[in-house]
Amino acid sequence: MIQRIRGTRDFTPAEMHKRREMETFLRNISLHFGFSEVLTPVMEHAELFVAKSGPGVLEEMYSFEDRGGRKLALRPELTAPIIRFYVNELLDRPLPLKLFSISNCFRYEEPQLGRYREFYHYDVEIIGSSEPAADAELLLLSDYVCKSLHLSSYKYRIGHVGIIRDALHAAGVPKEREAEFLHLIDKKRLEDAETLLEGMTSSTKAEEIMLLCRTRGDISVLSSLGKTAEHLTRVLELASGAGFGNFEVDLGVVRGLDYYTGLVFEIDFPELGAEKQICGGGSYRLSHLFGGPDTPATGFAFGFDRLLIAAEKSGWKPAGIRTDAFVIAVEPVREEEAAALAMNLRRSGLSVDYDLMGRNLSRALKYCASAGVRFALIIGERERKEGVVLLRDMETGMEEKVPVARLSERIME
Amino acid sequence: MIQRIRGTRDFTPAEMHKRREMETFLRNISLHFGFSEVLTPVMEHAELFVAKSGPGVLEEMYSFEDRGGRKLALRPELTAPIIRFYVNELLDRPLPLKLFSISNCFRYEEPQLGRYREFYHYDVEIIGSSEPAADAELLLLSDYVCKSLHLSSYKYRIGHVGIIRDALHAAGVPKEREAEFLHLIDKKRLEDAETLLEGMTSSTKAEEIMLLCRTRGDISVLSSLGKTAEHLTRVLELASGAGFGNFEVDLGVVRGLDYYTGLVFEIDFPELGAEKQICGGGSYRLSHLFGGPDTPATGFAFGFDRLLIAAEKSGWKPAGIRTDAFVIAVEPVREEEAAALAMNLRRSGLSVDYDLMGRNLSRALKYCASAGVRFALIIGERERKEGVVLLRDMETGMEEKVPVARLSERIME
Repeated sequence: MIQRIRGTRDFTPAEMHKRREMETFLRNISLHFGFSEVLTPVMEHAELFVAKSGPGVLEEMYSFEDRGGRKLALRPELTAPIIRFYVNELLDRPLPLKLFSISNCFRYEEPQLGRYREFYHYDVEIIGSSEPAADAELLLLSDYVCKSLHLSSYKYRIGHVGIIRDALHAAGVPKEREAEFLHLIDKKRLEDAETLLEGMTSSTKAEEIMLLCRTRGDISVLSSLGKTAEHLTRVLELASGAGFGNFEVDLGVVRGLDYYTGLVFEIDFPELGAEKQICGGGSYRLSHLFGGPDTPATGFAFGFDRLLIAAEKSGWKPAGIRTDAFVIAVEPVREEEAAALAMNLRRSGLSVDYDLMGRNLSRALKYCASAGVRFALIIGERERKEGVVLLRDMETGMEEKVPVARLSERIME
Repeated sequence: MIQRIRGTRDFTPAEMHKRREMETFLRNISLHFGFSEVLTPVMEHAELFVAKSGPGVLEEMYSFEDRGGRKLALRPELTAPIIRFYVNELLDRPLPLKLFSISNCFRYEEPQLGRYREFYHYDVEIIGSSEPAADAELLLLSDYVCKSLHLSSYKYRIGHVGIIRDALHAAGVPKEREAEFLHLIDKKRLEDAETLLEGMTSSTKAEEIMLLCRTRGDISVLSSLGKTAEHLTRVLELASGAGFGNFEVDLGVVRGLDYYTGLVFEIDFPELGAEKQICGGGSYRLSHLFGGPDTPATGFAFGFDRLLIAAEKSGWKPAGIRTDAFVIAVEPVREEEAAALAMNLRRSGLSVDYDLMGRNLSRALKYCASAGVRFALIIGERERKEGVVLLRDMETGMEEKVPVARLSERIME
């Protein structure tokens, strides 16, 4: 039997119904926040992701050569493609550009529980502003998503990679070693990070830096840091002033990649254990790496699949779907009449089905019961003569004759 | 500058708005017709498409090997993946399965006007019924799509590959040459098809077959064909009884591939010239090729991109989108208050933005004008003291003071 590729998924009708409802929810919120939707291709030139994340990323992507020998890749995330789109075609638009995209991404790794080779991101970017207000807007939007879904427990961990970079710079750590240090901090390998500092700066300075990386608490932990923490302080003041809470400052949150410049944050939903991080984001500069201007940007991405799980664990449920009515023609009434009646009811906005299997009355009724149909609409010869339809409530079993002209009205009651 | 891959597209906010509206429209119609949405992965094992369409398809697909040497492909269409999904996981569901999917497909060919390397299909399948009613349901659904979009001119060409196969069989043409013949008919190479028949059957029989392939007209052309045309006649009677029209019987429509069994149809939108075919479909058997039971199925696919063009050429327009309000805080009123007011209005369902660029009042108003914002909401010190907001209608320039508590109501008026 031909199987799907390991680590990919087929979505059943019930799953798709849920996913589309979540997508619509995220889309509407984004639009209310003044963001616009964009979509980029599934494939990109591999160099796009190498320019962003370094050659190591090739190992983690589905990449392949086309017949012209060009190296292509299935996108592992949506930020780089969106910034590429900006650089290619959107430079003349007024700033900031507030964009979002909800789509699939790919990574080539061993599939694990909750980690798929094809997965979905809800990605949001503000391009063109380095103001604290832009970062605050991202916190407000992501928080509004979590709140509206009534996530039972979630928490922001918020850092600022600029604060750590400033400290490294002041301590005389060479610029080219910064990334290495930040990478270790990101991986929570604090002791290795400390070892790395040895010889690059005094032990006092090294201790101060490590203390900074361990700084956690509410906004007040920033007050002793002076100018370096001004931006983050202002972001948190602004967001808090509009209802944002539920966060911890954690300067050890740095996110491993070079292009982050300031704010960095992660949202955890602890119930998910090892896969608890449902969102990550921060401010960055990528556009110049792709051949565009050096434009500031800030953004986040929710793991769509994880957000869905978190929402369901918190009691979120999509609205039910069911077929409003199923038309059954009983001989000598012909199938045409069932089809014609179904079409009429569909035109009035109802979800209506009829038999496509040549079933008789009792088998058709059995099907209605198993398929969760609300009303069976039976047309036999007597009904046709009287200009009525026998409407059977599949839940209660009650039957009534309804004139054809009043049928859609009756079903919608 | 890093560019996107040739033949792929980035969709701007205006394009995405249109595409999402079309998608929602197609989704809702499908649901009203009792179809359920499914989604399969973008990647499949290449053998899936080879099993369906023969090894030639490898040349037309993006295919590549993973690190384990398995040959993968980006799906060129949605039917094979959906039937694979059925075979893998849906065999225990009551039949018929009425499924649809709206998603992207890929083909590796030279990009041309209106032909992309990543394109979108709206695909519909009924699995498990070989009844005329199932085929008729597809005609009714696709026709309802065209009618609801008010397509200015469209026409069905409807054939039945079984009729031609029966005739070839009766004329003694070997089974294994059928595909070759049908392929030539599909490509409109009627003379070559006629030549092919030479030596395989008598010239009288060959002439009869060619006459059959040239048969075009209304449903009455089927009446002289007897039993072989019974199924198609019944399909057309059923569909016509429920409002279907606008078609021509054309037995030369055979669609080139082996797995079609009966009904075959295409919808043309002539205004699109060489790309006029917006939909194709028919009944087929594929499931057993993928390791499942020999289940009948029938389906169609609209080219989503072409349908969109056809709809627009017919005057279809998506509903407009604009930002309801844009909040501007004038010093000494702080940005927090703009953010807080925006959040309040967003919570009441409005689309609200505020300045993220540190603009002053006059530059912010200029931005509102260029971005199509409906109302600018200005809060200066005086407004704050009075508990009001200065609401400026960006179209008329009229200004009024509105109490904060009545603001969302006023905007929604």
